[in-house]
Amino acid sequence: MQTKEMIQEKMKQAVHQVKETNPLAGSITNTVTINLVANAQLAVGGSAAMVYLPDEGECLAAAGGALYINVGTLLPIYEETLPRTARALHAQGRPWVLDPVGIGIGSLRTELLQGFKAEKPSIIRGNASEIIALANLWGLESGQRADGVRGVDATDPVEAARQAAVSLARWTGGAVAVSGEHDLITDGRCTAFSYGGSPFMEKITGAGCSLGGVAAVYATAADPFIAALTASAVYNLAGKRAEARCSGPGSFQMEFLDALYQASAADIAQNPLTIEEEKA
Amino acid sequence: MQTKEMIQEKMKQAVHQVKETNPLAGSITNTVTINLVANAQLAVGGSAAMVYLPDEGECLAAAGGALYINVGTLLPIYEETLPRTARALHAQGRPWVLDPVGIGIGSLRTELLQGFKAEKPSIIRGNASEIIALANLWGLESGQRADGVRGVDATDPVEAARQAAVSLARWTGGAVAVSGEHDLITDGRCTAFSYGGSPFMEKITGAGCSLGGVAAVYATAADPFIAALTASAVYNLAGKRAEARCSGPGSFQMEFLDALYQASAADIAQNPLTIEEEKA
Amino acid sequence: MQTKEMIQEKMKQAVHQVKETNPLAGSITNTVTINLVANAQLAVGGSAAMVYLPDEGECLAAAGGALYINVGTLLPIYEETLPRTARALHAQGRPWVLDPVGIGIGSLRTELLQGFKAEKPSIIRGNASEIIALANLWGLESGQRADGVRGVDATDPVEAARQAAVSLARWTGGAVAVSGEHDLITDGRCTAFSYGGSPFMEKITGAGCSLGGVAAVYATAADPFIAALTASAVYNLAGKRAEARCSGPGSFQMEFLDALYQASAADIAQNPLTIEEEKA
Repeated sequence: MQTKEMIQEKMKQAVHQVKETNPLAGSITNTVTINLVANAQLAVGGSAAMVYLPDEGECLAAAGGALYINVGTLLPIYEETLPRTARALHAQGRPWVLDPVGIGIGSLRTELLQGFKAEKPSIIRGNASEIIALANLWGLESGQRADGVRGVDATDPVEAARQAAVSLARWTGGAVAVSGEHDLITDGRCTAFSYGGSPFMEKITGAGCSLGGVAAVYATAADPFIAALTASAVYNLAGKRAEARCSGPGSFQMEFLDALYQASAADIAQNPLTIEEEKA
Repeated sequence: MQTKEMIQEKMKQAVHQVKETNPLAGSITNTVTINLVANAQLAVGGSAAMVYLPDEGECLAAAGGALYINVGTLLPIYEETLPRTARALHAQGRPWVLDPVGIGIGSLRTELLQGFKAEKPSIIRGNASEIIALANLWGLESGQRADGVRGVDATDPVEAARQAAVSLARWTGGAVAVSGEHDLITDGRCTAFSYGGSPFMEKITGAGCSLGGVAAVYATAADPFIAALTASAVYNLAGKRAEARCSGPGSFQMEFLDALYQASAADIAQNPLTIEEEKA
Repeated sequence: MQTKEMIQEKMKQAVHQVKETNPLAGSITNTVTINLVANAQLAVGGSAAMVYLPDEGECLAAAGGALYINVGTLLPIYEETLPRTARALHAQGRPWVLDPVGIGIGSLRTELLQGFKAEKPSIIRGNASEIIALANLWGLESGQRADGVRGVDATDPVEAARQAAVSLARWTGGAVAVSGEHDLITDGRCTAFSYGGSPFMEKITGAGCSLGGVAAVYATAADPFIAALTASAVYNLAGKRAEARCSGPGSFQMEFLDALYQASAADIAQNPLTIEEEKA
């Protein structure tokens, strides 16, 4: 297993590379938080582009260093767009991030999420309830049934999703990030916990979605585990700093974007972090 | 008629219940202000989820304590989504809020708004011109013809929409809220006026839309009249406080979300308010 | 050629007229930055309305003083909506602004942008790469091949797009605005350069899109060249002021909207500006 120092060094390199190369990470994402996703990607040094149509998804899959797919607000055309884009990403070996938000709502969402199993997203990001529900949908060992997803909110604690996250990561060969009070990031062998953040991240819409978009940005510059961990680290750091300066959710969102922008590679790598090995 | 004190006591209870139970109020709403709707719902203590597809609308109608429908930016699929969702809400007796924004623009909007007459929205929220136009569209007594709606802006004063609001409320058996310099909220028997707010609420997009979303949150915890009145009260309070701290529309929006979050149940219930009885 | 003083006087008049008459400029624009477009239009004194459906586009074309079309996030229905709306605008002689964002991504975008050649947008706004690509797509003299558009970002300097901008303006009989470190605005005979702005305008999403929406607001009150130049001037002024007060992209966006709102007609007209005559 790699040491904490090795991991932190790689995180630092990923942050540096993004700040220096301004890499493009396209997105197909929901309309509720699409603006925050783009602004967060720009704040950490990336470049953003969002599309809805099938050939445009394929075009972004080819053009960008990575892609972010979030199934929050599905449109009818997504029935074509998402499978074609995911297939293109998988075929070309491009890293991509899946956010299974709202899993359980409606038949198209279930069908699309089921289909993604074969395309093996490099990073899966969700709250504990979503990660458990996805592992169950894919027929992987989850350790438990989902307590249920209520709309877009988690009703399970992070630790409850550990087995599901490990199973998903072993299936995809990538990483899984579970957002919660602290974040759990695993590649199926090594599991990291990232600390910090703020209760205000639940009081604005899009903290989770934009974290997925930022993970896609870092996935242009690092392997899935490091990319997901770096994204969680900068979010936990920026959330903590923003909370100290804000008076409510409006000023929190403003301070959070400022803090994302200000965070240095060293700061991000040194954000509190623990590592555990998973039994085979 | 209930006294002002009885009304204020119910408002206080609604605010408390929302802050304690974090109720889900789904939305099908326009893409311009969808982010502010969600953030405002979260700021007052609710939970948000937005969808576009027919079976997802029905799913949210069943899952949430209330729903918000805003016809601002119609998509083709809404021809199916909105009637099916409204029918599900009405059949299940779920409270729902209708915002007839842009009434008069295009044929689908007219057809959808006409169809909502039978589904009896629990709360109708709009500016004076929209409320008059909806009463006319539904063939109810409005006291006058609409002066005309220009895009999404009112050209009529609040008082001009009083008869239309009373007629609509008597038809639906719910409440109607007319936004303007002061807000008029009626259940067809009792009409309340809520005071405060800020001219900056016209200088940002979405003050009206997000008020509708917040009314849906309170409708999970109170009857339509109290829910609409509580939403207007917290908006008038937060608008006034935000104006005192802002330097323009950018800082106003930030301060407004902070003020929504900070407002206590007692503050909201004590926001200036008058009550009049409507003649039968 | 008109003198700088004559131009500044017209800019001042345009700003005054907008602040006094609150003119409606509708938009069909992308979902990423649609909220900022509306808020920027409101901040300078205009009124906003956004739609997606064909007959609604025609309705706004007839109702508003000008319209803004941005092809950022295309939906399937745009295949009908955009040609019908552009045709209505051209037939009625209404000013309209085209933002060819993402030119080169996908087949529908190419087809729609090709079709706009006949409808002669009054103002075309884009970054240097987009303007060169559009002139090439329309078969006009551009002086060079586009270096390529990467997603939605420019890879060419402003000056490289001068010939393309002049060719486009001569074809449409309107104006072309090229955004960059400084902005170039031409009507094909007179070329103006507007100075100021901030590197933070690249660190938030939608500075370009919302500039297009604000140009549409001013196009209700001035000819295309003056409208585009006034929009660039207020953006350069507000960007400079916002940068002086911000700590990152979150506070920049807030300060920017405040600065747009605060800018007086005299301030805008006096923003640094140079003028050159183009050879016939």
